[in-house]
Amino acid sequence: MASEYKTIKGQEFDRAAFESLLRRKVFLWQSFEPYGAVKGLFDYGPPLENLEAEVINIWRDHFIRHEKMMALKCSMLTPYEVLKTSGHVEKFADFMCKDPKTGEILRSDHLIKDVIEARLKSDKEARGEKVEEAEEDPKRKKKQAKAAKGAVKLDDAVRKEYEHLLATLDDCTGDDMGALIKKHDIRNPTSGNEVEPPVSVNLMFQTQIGATGKEPAFLRPETAQGQFLSFQKLLEFSDNQLPMASACIGYSFRNELSPRSGLIRVREFLMAEVEHFVDPESGKKHPKFATVRDVKLPLLDRKTQSAGNTTPTVTSVGEAVDSKLVDNETLGYFLVRIMLFMQKIGIDMNKLRFRQHMANEMAHYAADCWDCELLSSYGWIECVGCADRSAYDLSVHEKATGTFLKVREPLKEPYKVEEWQANLDKKKSGPKLKKDQAKVEAALKGLSQEFKEKLSVTMEKEGKVEVPVPEMEGGKVELDKDIVSFSKETRMETMREYTPNVIEPSFGVGRILYSLMEHVYWTREGDAARSVMSFKPTTAPIKVLVVPLQKDTRFAPLLQALEAKLDDDQLSFKVDQSGVSIGKRYSRNDELGIPFGITVDYESLEGKGFTLRDRDSTKQVRASIDEILEAVVKMCKGKETWEDVAKRLPAFEGKEE
Amino acid sequence: MASEYKTIKGQEFDRAAFESLLRRKVFLWQSFEPYGAVKGLFDYGPPLENLEAEVINIWRDHFIRHEKMMALKCSMLTPYEVLKTSGHVEKFADFMCKDPKTGEILRSDHLIKDVIEARLKSDKEARGEKVEEAEEDPKRKKKQAKAAKGAVKLDDAVRKEYEHLLATLDDCTGDDMGALIKKHDIRNPTSGNEVEPPVSVNLMFQTQIGATGKEPAFLRPETAQGQFLSFQKLLEFSDNQLPMASACIGYSFRNELSPRSGLIRVREFLMAEVEHFVDPESGKKHPKFATVRDVKLPLLDRKTQSAGNTTPTVTSVGEAVDSKLVDNETLGYFLVRIMLFMQKIGIDMNKLRFRQHMANEMAHYAADCWDCELLSSYGWIECVGCADRSAYDLSVHEKATGTFLKVREPLKEPYKVEEWQANLDKKKSGPKLKKDQAKVEAALKGLSQEFKEKLSVTMEKEGKVEVPVPEMEGGKVELDKDIVSFSKETRMETMREYTPNVIEPSFGVGRILYSLMEHVYWTREGDAARSVMSFKPTTAPIKVLVVPLQKDTRFAPLLQALEAKLDDDQLSFKVDQSGVSIGKRYSRNDELGIPFGITVDYESLEGKGFTLRDRDSTKQVRASIDEILEAVVKMCKGKETWEDVAKRLPAFEGKEE
Repeated sequence: MASEYKTIKGQEFDRAAFESLLRRKVFLWQSFEPYGAVKGLFDYGPPLENLEAEVINIWRDHFIRHEKMMALKCSMLTPYEVLKTSGHVEKFADFMCKDPKTGEILRSDHLIKDVIEARLKSDKEARGEKVEEAEEDPKRKKKQAKAAKGAVKLDDAVRKEYEHLLATLDDCTGDDMGALIKKHDIRNPTSGNEVEPPVSVNLMFQTQIGATGKEPAFLRPETAQGQFLSFQKLLEFSDNQLPMASACIGYSFRNELSPRSGLIRVREFLMAEVEHFVDPESGKKHPKFATVRDVKLPLLDRKTQSAGNTTPTVTSVGEAVDSKLVDNETLGYFLVRIMLFMQKIGIDMNKLRFRQHMANEMAHYAADCWDCELLSSYGWIECVGCADRSAYDLSVHEKATGTFLKVREPLKEPYKVEEWQANLDKKKSGPKLKKDQAKVEAALKGLSQEFKEKLSVTMEKEGKVEVPVPEMEGGKVELDKDIVSFSKETRMETMREYTPNVIEPSFGVGRILYSLMEHVYWTREGDAARSVMSFKPTTAPIKVLVVPLQKDTRFAPLLQALEAKLDDDQLSFKVDQSGVSIGKRYSRNDELGIPFGITVDYESLEGKGFTLRDRDSTKQVRASIDEILEAVVKMCKGKETWEDVAKRLPAFEGKEE
Repeated sequence: MASEYKTIKGQEFDRAAFESLLRRKVFLWQSFEPYGAVKGLFDYGPPLENLEAEVINIWRDHFIRHEKMMALKCSMLTPYEVLKTSGHVEKFADFMCKDPKTGEILRSDHLIKDVIEARLKSDKEARGEKVEEAEEDPKRKKKQAKAAKGAVKLDDAVRKEYEHLLATLDDCTGDDMGALIKKHDIRNPTSGNEVEPPVSVNLMFQTQIGATGKEPAFLRPETAQGQFLSFQKLLEFSDNQLPMASACIGYSFRNELSPRSGLIRVREFLMAEVEHFVDPESGKKHPKFATVRDVKLPLLDRKTQSAGNTTPTVTSVGEAVDSKLVDNETLGYFLVRIMLFMQKIGIDMNKLRFRQHMANEMAHYAADCWDCELLSSYGWIECVGCADRSAYDLSVHEKATGTFLKVREPLKEPYKVEEWQANLDKKKSGPKLKKDQAKVEAALKGLSQEFKEKLSVTMEKEGKVEVPVPEMEGGKVELDKDIVSFSKETRMETMREYTPNVIEPSFGVGRILYSLMEHVYWTREGDAARSVMSFKPTTAPIKVLVVPLQKDTRFAPLLQALEAKLDDDQLSFKVDQSGVSIGKRYSRNDELGIPFGITVDYESLEGKGFTLRDRDSTKQVRASIDEILEAVVKMCKGKETWEDVAKRLPAFEGKEE
């Protein structure tokens, strides 16, 4: 895969050179280096931090503002009970094997894969077949190398069994993997020791709130749960109208047990998640679908994948929804918006596809899921998941807490209904509840049918019940049978109640940024190959490079005036006054992806304006400072391109080198 | 204090009404309400989330872009060792008392304060003196009420002792507080039980990285440590030039044991921190100080406070630095920039002051510290700390890790020096170190003098040493005396090495947002008092309210065209088509702080333009849609005010109600 990966100019992609650029220009590094660095944690330096800020601003504009989404900030610290209900305590886990002698912890599926792949590789060597270098991660490569024992030929049957095993590994349970490890004598490649059977280890970071030990908590594994638990507020803010969507940009955490592949698998990561709530009976139509019907998407569906094919079909989203290839309009609308966002930030559209999840890879809550994948030198990487979470989350939280998490709306055709009612005897409850009376009454009214029925059984048995009242101190109240009774009553139902379904586009910001950096990287041919980061003017971390022709104090007043004007226009800029040639100064700043360069030369001193240089074409124009700044501002806002500017302003044939 | 707090219009501030508005318009709420809500954790709804995004963008522009700071993103998860070195493991703690019978945990200083204040209050009642309602937090008020036992008169001497005790409580150690609790028989007000002696409890959230149990970690209590540990990268990016500054906007955590006062003391909070590195021998001059010399600041210094006075002196920063009231130019420059930022986002300048820390309140690392405090109904709240952390952090991390965290620059006058050298015998080390040879050589060269001396002692004793080599797998190497030796040598020093000092402006974003919301809140007099949130157009969460005169399908095409134009201009807007009167629609959206309203009426249908309404003055103008949008865009960018627009465009005398 990696060897097929090319730069935007069709050049061989040299990952070592690319990583050296990221290091040299301090885009990113492993956190806490002086303390030996921590795996899976990264710090961003100025170029990448600013790139992230620009990308997030575009995301906010493209989704939150344009789509009128309700922006939320939810807490990262999350009580144990919330994630117990959502299923994460049980299911957000990996199977791990321990090497009992060294104490090393190995991910069971990685262990099996590494060992079996190594055996297949050595078999190929023994058979004199060509061996592909599939693994790019140097650490993993080393492990594979350790697992291999030279060229050892396998029986044809064993080879076939191994190949089948690798193809079906993703479907294995912990017990399955335990059996495989035993059957094939799979050992820790580093030590040669047998390993203990697979054990499920939760991937959430655990901590506790307060000092009592009574409030266990996790760092959230996704921002979604906080959004679901804000459902009532969102509905209020939306005047009870669906569809509605919330959006949260925030950090989530995953305690990866063996993080690898740089920014692709990290322990702390920024997500941008949308929860779009729809009425399931509406057919999940989207009001703006007609505006995107004809947009073409590269879709790789489940069936195609099952047939062993990886070429996406380019289809208009209208056709895809009509043929049920994509389940519904809302999902289809978001796939289009995701693609347009990627285009806006500068992703190479030839390195983007939408892949439908196979049944076995979907998260425990998902009804359907399409990933937006971006091609990088690591292969195709999931960067946005677009899942239909159905009514799963709201339902389980309602059940666990007794809080009403549904929509109520007037019915067109009222009908008769039998249901449980809580009857509060206000004469008797008044003296006991005092000022809390109204809160208790409201809480009783809000209880679900199931909960009221449960309470009626408890009341029968114990003569008293405990009712959750979130607004009271302590959060609940005990009521005995004198005060409240439960009965089944018949009445006309004039309202409809339903749990909305949720379509969730979920963006992994770090993965998108990493892919983007690979996509804009290329090398300019010349005496020596020079690297360029072709960030769009809208996302570039620094917008303008200012280069005085040479060190000369006469330039100082002009530079000062220029800097003041750039500041007025709120343009970020860098002044490079070092002694090297203009060409060298441009080329080393091309590595930072600065899209425009302004040269101050001797003609500038004579009032003949400045030159403006375009990073990608190295073409230049010469004009007055105001004309140049107007052009730069427009290009940095995405309102003009270099081609537009080059038509308006006179070309300048400068000698760059 | 609270009773003296007035709105910007000089009105009595009604906190209950204000909080009701925040709830009604879903500005914020306690997180995880369906699960009983968690103290000290808050979710932001759309108005506050968008306000925060606008404020952060202004901060980025005002500090990062304008001051050319290096933006960083550092990890929140932080290894134990880092915070052990920084002093947080030992000193970032509160003293707590446990009620052994109920298990309740009480902050020792709060417990003492609550009980003693309650006794003084009941004494005042007994003496028939006026009792102030000092405490605004309803939960704390309740505790005080429980602690009070009706009107009980105290001896004059006891009263005096209590007053002295309260005034000096901040200086008490844990043992001091233990003695006070015993002496004055201070008990848990809720239960009446005696409490256990104060114990120091760390305020950091602890967790662990990976599953081995060998990587204990904390959630960072400040972003600063990540910035210090990136020092070498920053210096590289700055071409080894000081002064230089990094900036990090990110979350920090504090496991408050009894959180209270809403957004003022929370467990998870956004900070924006700057670390400005200066050469201590430069006198901490700032290159742009001359540009701010004459700016006047309200300064409340240490001496004034000691004298029991709380009125700040308004002084130009130039005078303040000249007289050493403010220690140095850099500190002074930042105080000015902080004030200008506050002004930009809409803080009431009459509710801002800079207060110098008393010696006993400074953090363990600080050499001097000025807080920017904002007045709210809770009193004066620290919103920005501006501390001189001296060379503390870089020094302790260098000492703990042996990593070179200094600046090296050519000396003007070279001099002779004696120092420890590590001599690597490359013939012997080659076969052992192989490809790591160069890394080890570099690591040895980079070791501090102290560390080399330590190693030489170890070598003497044990014949081998362990050298940290961060770039090698395992992070260290063992070398014996054949391979490396340590000796003291004399040589000419041509370079100067020094640890920079750090000035740190540290912003608590949540506190600033809370204060801002109080500052812009007022009520418009009329038939009924109506609340207004006068956010500046630059920070307002939603920019435009669109109101069709009434429900009429003839307005639909105009509305659609207007919405498309607003979208093109990237303006966030809300359409209010509900059936109530225009006046009512305006006034309920004034609560969201929408600065501008566009009315679509029957004259609009005739091509006679639209009216534009200013929220604060309720004045209107009438003009074409393009003129109106141009005005709105300019006002939302801070380039025009309503006064400018009202001069340009014809007034419209509409009937609002």
